Amino acid sequence: MSDNSIRIGILGASGYTGAETIRLLADHPMAQIAWLTADRNAGKPISALFPHLAHLPLPHLSTYDEADTAGVDSIFCCLPHGLTQETVAGLPEGPKIIDLSADFRMRDPAAYERIYGKPHIAQALQQEAVYGLSEQYRDAIASARLVANPGCYTTTSELPLVPLLKERLISTSNIIIDAKSGVSGAGRSAKEGSLHTEVSEGLHAYGVATHRHAPEIDQCLSDFAADPVTVSFTPHLVPMNRGILATIYVSLEHDVTVDDLQSTLERAYADCPFVDVLPMRSLPATRHVRGSNRCLISVHPDRVEGRAILLSVTDNLVKAASGQAIQNMNIMLGLDETMGLRQVPVFP
Amino acid sequence: MSDNSIRIGILGASGYTGAETIRLLADHPMAQIAWLTADRNAGKPISALFPHLAHLPLPHLSTYDEADTAGVDSIFCCLPHGLTQETVAGLPEGPKIIDLSADFRMRDPAAYERIYGKPHIAQALQQEAVYGLSEQYRDAIASARLVANPGCYTTTSELPLVPLLKERLISTSNIIIDAKSGVSGAGRSAKEGSLHTEVSEGLHAYGVATHRHAPEIDQCLSDFAADPVTVSFTPHLVPMNRGILATIYVSLEHDVTVDDLQSTLERAYADCPFVDVLPMRSLPATRHVRGSNRCLISVHPDRVEGRAILLSVTDNLVKAASGQAIQNMNIMLGLDETMGLRQVPVFP
Amino acid sequence: MSDNSIRIGILGASGYTGAETIRLLADHPMAQIAWLTADRNAGKPISALFPHLAHLPLPHLSTYDEADTAGVDSIFCCLPHGLTQETVAGLPEGPKIIDLSADFRMRDPAAYERIYGKPHIAQALQQEAVYGLSEQYRDAIASARLVANPGCYTTTSELPLVPLLKERLISTSNIIIDAKSGVSGAGRSAKEGSLHTEVSEGLHAYGVATHRHAPEIDQCLSDFAADPVTVSFTPHLVPMNRGILATIYVSLEHDVTVDDLQSTLERAYADCPFVDVLPMRSLPATRHVRGSNRCLISVHPDRVEGRAILLSVTDNLVKAASGQAIQNMNIMLGLDETMGLRQVPVFP
Amino acid sequence: MSDNSIRIGILGASGYTGAETIRLLADHPMAQIAWLTADRNAGKPISALFPHLAHLPLPHLSTYDEADTAGVDSIFCCLPHGLTQETVAGLPEGPKIIDLSADFRMRDPAAYERIYGKPHIAQALQQEAVYGLSEQYRDAIASARLVANPGCYTTTSELPLVPLLKERLISTSNIIIDAKSGVSGAGRSAKEGSLHTEVSEGLHAYGVATHRHAPEIDQCLSDFAADPVTVSFTPHLVPMNRGILATIYVSLEHDVTVDDLQSTLERAYADCPFVDVLPMRSLPATRHVRGSNRCLISVHPDRVEGRAILLSVTDNLVKAASGQAIQNMNIMLGLDETMGLRQVPVFP
Repeated sequence: MSDNSIRIGILGASGYTGAETIRLLADHPMAQIAWLTADRNAGKPISALFPHLAHLPLPHLSTYDEADTAGVDSIFCCLPHGLTQETVAGLPEGPKIIDLSADFRMRDPAAYERIYGKPHIAQALQQEAVYGLSEQYRDAIASARLVANPGCYTTTSELPLVPLLKERLISTSNIIIDAKSGVSGAGRSAKEGSLHTEVSEGLHAYGVATHRHAPEIDQCLSDFAADPVTVSFTPHLVPMNRGILATIYVSLEHDVTVDDLQSTLERAYADCPFVDVLPMRSLPATRHVRGSNRCLISVHPDRVEGRAILLSVTDNLVKAASGQAIQNMNIMLGLDETMGLRQVPVFP
Repeated sequence: MSDNSIRIGILGASGYTGAETIRLLADHPMAQIAWLTADRNAGKPISALFPHLAHLPLPHLSTYDEADTAGVDSIFCCLPHGLTQETVAGLPEGPKIIDLSADFRMRDPAAYERIYGKPHIAQALQQEAVYGLSEQYRDAIASARLVANPGCYTTTSELPLVPLLKERLISTSNIIIDAKSGVSGAGRSAKEGSLHTEVSEGLHAYGVATHRHAPEIDQCLSDFAADPVTVSFTPHLVPMNRGILATIYVSLEHDVTVDDLQSTLERAYADCPFVDVLPMRSLPATRHVRGSNRCLISVHPDRVEGRAILLSVTDNLVKAASGQAIQNMNIMLGLDETMGLRQVPVFP
Repeated sequence: MSDNSIRIGILGASGYTGAETIRLLADHPMAQIAWLTADRNAGKPISALFPHLAHLPLPHLSTYDEADTAGVDSIFCCLPHGLTQETVAGLPEGPKIIDLSADFRMRDPAAYERIYGKPHIAQALQQEAVYGLSEQYRDAIASARLVANPGCYTTTSELPLVPLLKERLISTSNIIIDAKSGVSGAGRSAKEGSLHTEVSEGLHAYGVATHRHAPEIDQCLSDFAADPVTVSFTPHLVPMNRGILATIYVSLEHDVTVDDLQSTLERAYADCPFVDVLPMRSLPATRHVRGSNRCLISVHPDRVEGRAILLSVTDNLVKAASGQAIQNMNIMLGLDETMGLRQVPVFP
Repeated sequence: MSDNSIRIGILGASGYTGAETIRLLADHPMAQIAWLTADRNAGKPISALFPHLAHLPLPHLSTYDEADTAGVDSIFCCLPHGLTQETVAGLPEGPKIIDLSADFRMRDPAAYERIYGKPHIAQALQQEAVYGLSEQYRDAIASARLVANPGCYTTTSELPLVPLLKERLISTSNIIIDAKSGVSGAGRSAKEGSLHTEVSEGLHAYGVATHRHAPEIDQCLSDFAADPVTVSFTPHLVPMNRGILATIYVSLEHDVTVDDLQSTLERAYADCPFVDVLPMRSLPATRHVRGSNRCLISVHPDRVEGRAILLSVTDNLVKAASGQAIQNMNIMLGLDETMGLRQVPVFP
């Protein structure tokens, strides 16, 4: 089964999503990593950056220029925002590209410029890119050359909401997403705000009403809703490394019950191996998905009439980043969607 | 100034709120602890339970029966819910009583029974008890014999909301409180769900729409609002020991702006030494109040028109428990409200 | 390859080592779990105790009496100390048994009684049991019916020391093991000392000079040393869930250099897929092995002449518990030693 | 009592030791902070860097040039290593100076150069500086103008060892210090190795046999021992913010018993308000001293004949940094040693 017939390149292997993509691909029976780029660390083994990967048979890190970009079947782009557009624009035609940055997620050039403060420099590709929320855009992903892998908060928030908006079960005008993330979402760059001393034994909100994932969520939800959606969205930094929990407050449409939400979600994800709709009133925890490509969702009646609460958890580095990226690659290459993604959550 | 003229007894000194009350009282220039009860540990020094208090000059733990309840000026009751009613009912007339349990918070016997599953056994006292949210019930507290110290989630949620409801600035029908707490709120009893392995490196919601603090919040807010209030309330368990953050989503009444919220809150707490209304869009963190009796509040405009987001943080063991209890004692005894409560937050 | 031809039973599936054994076996291409016992939780699905395992195709929990102990190829015994002796004594002849408790680790009945305070009740089996430090007792394990899986501190301490004692490179009389463990080593039982509040943001030693793993280490090291060994051993509880680090201080024998230690260890583990001897002066971290069956070892010259420092890290639930147990099963059944144990460490 | 008659300046208020000095001085009845320097943040309020100090009445941050260095009674120097020498050399004659950096700890210019890789540029001051281990150099501190405040590992290690070496109870040739520290010891600078993701849920040793605190410990111990001392010293980074635990392995001199160690330590610290020698076999935890100026010490017999184990804990930012600095200021100014340092440990 392990025929190594799919050659893979990773751009930007020195960050956490790069490392996590490598970790997961080590379990992929058909994948062979052909090259790993990390310009500032070119020439070093991956173990110089990530000792936990030392025992894997991997090529040394190389520069982008050294990478045989045409000689691979698939490229994972784990570069920082902004830098990515130009790089992707320069890639050859053949390989399937999964971009884990935010650069190709917004479809509208004006929206991109408003959010990121400068014009997009690869607008044709921006139009071409398919949004990679695997379970909801599967057909488009299957025929895409370039997939824009969704953000971590966005994946976790969109999965429970899309089916409910599709079926017109909840109001589009009163969706409140209170999201909580572990620290790895901030990446490996050395910032005061990510220090252990500044994060552990405490909690705070940030980017209140201004976070860049909010318009991304709006765009995705609006794809499926009757009307354009604008969500309230507040991210929080939790003293843990991995995991995202979205607590979502919704208003039910007339005559809709929480049982309708439950059954609709169960139906929507019945055939999706990575999304589990738990029995009503369940309490999913991020630790139940740690290290795995799973998303757990539950529905709760609110104590306020006509409202409901949705809970959704993922591992922000797996289902909400590198795992979904590999899932998308599998879809793009016509493979079994779960290939390489059967890791059991690590608890405790 | 250290005249030790106020004699104090603590019922239930073996839990975290008992220990925290002792820690804070060690800084109180007029307080002298006369007795500490802990029935199962009677006869032991406090250091047998809490080595961090070993160096303080404290009486040994005693049984309730041994405690000279009539010979003190003030009694802090740190006993578990349920047990407290009977104990408080048996206390003599003289001392001021501050009850840190939930037993006397709900004023309505029917509501109490509905929430706690059995009738209240000291209903006269239940009516007499004053709700101890210091800044909002100060006058009533000043003349009370029995104060029901508010819960931790409730203190943190009520402080930002009361002034806005008083002034009719926000809708009573769409208040959503997404609250996050450290683990010490669950007390020191050995429960699987409070183990380090079950709490650290993860996050989950619990008591969704069913937590007992929700009706307590309703009762307090309704005291000040135009109409009865029913809040949406979701608590979460965060892998930290101390701290509560409430993220509160509110709808503005017609013609009200977020600036109105800001100025109203600033005015409301201008003379309150422990409540700081931060500049608009500030990001208070629980670590900024750790170990102190402070509450930090900030106002944020939401990205959805007509809505705003309030952030409020406390140390759940101090302002939201033992610190507020001492603040209430100071008010009841006519002392400076800040006496013994000037601890600077401990960070990092 | 996934032929499910090896039928497996797990006794005591409600604890962390039980759950971890299940997690790892899910990756084993030949293993099929036939039954899982948990007497107090019989009848429930494993997800009732461990939601992170919910998606695996597993039998419901059963009582011991319901388990078809004769119908399996291998039994993992994850029961508490003391209880295990009687249970193992009652097992049928056929299946290979790997006991993860301490009950069969000490070979000498008198030593067992001294340490555990009561006589061993299955002394014949105690003699028969083979100590399961895979890399050092591989031949005996291969032909054993009953393997006593080593303790977590012991595995981590013995792997670096055994080759050095075998080759007479270090003194037997001055071995100091300062060991640090995560909290999962204390199991899932609800104990005050394992609460998040009592563990996080702090550190302490425990069982100083009295821990039960010390005589186990003595016994193993003495198997390979010129003289009986008595180690100094101090365990510490670190606020993390997984991982053990042993910092070991040794005195070099006459004319021995740290380079000799390095080369001896490299040679000893050259063919061992799970033990990596890092370049001299490396700094292994427990996070580099988290979730994996790996042990990392490094050698450091001390600043004191004639002394050296060894560092050794494992995941206490994998290489130092369930992983090594599966490794031993593989050896006992003549399978590839790494089968089911290729999990890449999860970092961060 | 709060007469504010002691004017204080703090050089380098933007780091953790600066902030901690401010926190503690807020409780000092005679201290008034006259200025705080932080060159890159001059003009800002301290709350811009440390929101937890926002409510204190403090001057804004200034540049060094703006600080009235001659107009204060005492100066705390919280600048980085290296930079400090020149700054201290430029200070006027009057004020008492407590330097929290490592610059004046080593007395021997050659040793300094060997350790820090460049010559000391203020060697006269280096000779003049008194080592500030308060309990052991109290008389010299009382008459000093410049005190070199000890390092965090060193304070914690030296306090239990000095009395035993003074009394010739332990061998000078076999002292092994295995020390574990929280992350705040690494300061607030943004380094990859101090990120939450790189520290939490894991453990590692660093600076094995090469850490700069080892020669500092040697120097101090040699001051009191019969012979020059060279210790084995291994620091470890523990996923917590505050706290140091030193586990120290010693060999008893002929005819010495662990009871001798115990009684000698008890006698040595009988009159020291901040050092508690616990009953033999006690298990001090860093959480028992968190936020306080306390050091807890215990003695354990080893299981190896003729050896003993010492445990010592401090809060690395208080007794092992800012607290001891204030204690030294009190001694230098002839005040009660405990003034401003009566904070009760914060637990949990």
